[in-house]
Amino acid sequence: MDNAIKKMDRPIPLGVVKRLPVYYRFLTGLMKKEIERISSQELADKLGVTASQIRQDLNHFGSFGRRGYGYRVKELQEVIAYILGINQRKNMVLVGAGNLGKAIANYSSFREKGFFIKAVFDNDSAKIGTVLANCKIKSIDFLEEFLCSNNIDIGILAIPVENSTIIAKMFEENGVKGIWSFAPINIKSRRNIVVENVHISESLMTLSYRIQSE
Amino acid sequence: MDNAIKKMDRPIPLGVVKRLPVYYRFLTGLMKKEIERISSQELADKLGVTASQIRQDLNHFGSFGRRGYGYRVKELQEVIAYILGINQRKNMVLVGAGNLGKAIANYSSFREKGFFIKAVFDNDSAKIGTVLANCKIKSIDFLEEFLCSNNIDIGILAIPVENSTIIAKMFEENGVKGIWSFAPINIKSRRNIVVENVHISESLMTLSYRIQSE
Repeated sequence: MDNAIKKMDRPIPLGVVKRLPVYYRFLTGLMKKEIERISSQELADKLGVTASQIRQDLNHFGSFGRRGYGYRVKELQEVIAYILGINQRKNMVLVGAGNLGKAIANYSSFREKGFFIKAVFDNDSAKIGTVLANCKIKSIDFLEEFLCSNNIDIGILAIPVENSTIIAKMFEENGVKGIWSFAPINIKSRRNIVVENVHISESLMTLSYRIQSE
Repeated sequence: MDNAIKKMDRPIPLGVVKRLPVYYRFLTGLMKKEIERISSQELADKLGVTASQIRQDLNHFGSFGRRGYGYRVKELQEVIAYILGINQRKNMVLVGAGNLGKAIANYSSFREKGFFIKAVFDNDSAKIGTVLANCKIKSIDFLEEFLCSNNIDIGILAIPVENSTIIAKMFEENGVKGIWSFAPINIKSRRNIVVENVHISESLMTLSYRIQSE
């Protein structure tokens, strides 16, 4: 892990950060197949980027791989996991227990990576009191109180656009470090909080274009 | 629309294509606020890119905007919609009627943009025969037959990894033009079909990194 820590004081460009989970997922797949090493060219071919791009990306956090040998899969996967904060426990709250909220809550691979849902909130009285992801769904009225008395890293927004700004503000004012938003709007990152938007419909539009043009 | 059609024979880089839905969403928001024009600088500031990037992106498909005036919001939104194939009817089938499938099926804004779910398939006998998105859920055993006798543009995969490759192959062999996959694996684009993967967990990992570093 020493190689990585050496350069962690240099900020990593967001474009690089967004590729790290792709590398991580792919390397994890290789580990499952018990593949121990891979050349940057093979890695590049599989991921549809250039070998030089991969070398440049990895160079941001240390020197990995050797000419003629390639990368040690396990070492690289562990370094990337470390940089991404995977397996370093993160507490989350989920706001919105609709179909999307349920899909997120039941996605067990998050838990395996150290992301835990500590509480679920909704404003639908039919849902409040029922159980999701081992949590009894609470009324949204208790969200602020919960945030005040618990150390929450990530707030998940799986609610319609209309209410998302109010809840995002509540997250921000009560010490939540990051918002993972599925509300189809851009919530701007503010001073004290980081926002990651998942725009599902944008990928459908990209697909729509590619169907017509390819 | 003439400006756009002029250059449509030049292929547009995928990076540009992926930014178009962002511009589209933002311009649609401006139209709702009845804003008629915007400068590339304002557009850039709001979207967190550079004005030069926006000008370069738009230049791929014609000349829009004038120095000192900016862009006509409605014109630009319409051109982008046209290029993305929005409002040009696309028939879809949904495979997987779990929570994620339900969330996708109930997302009404797709329909408004011309994306219609024609049929829903699942392998769970408790779900087959129930109704989702105005479709009676069919057994997956009838998928191939349905694809053969209907003109389907997009196949949506909202199922676990294990079965996704088989279904993707069935899509490909039966004339489906594009796959919109939520299965957390990389399905490679093959010769006859375009694949757009939505990797939800990657955005959580990016958020995890940003929480630690910002």
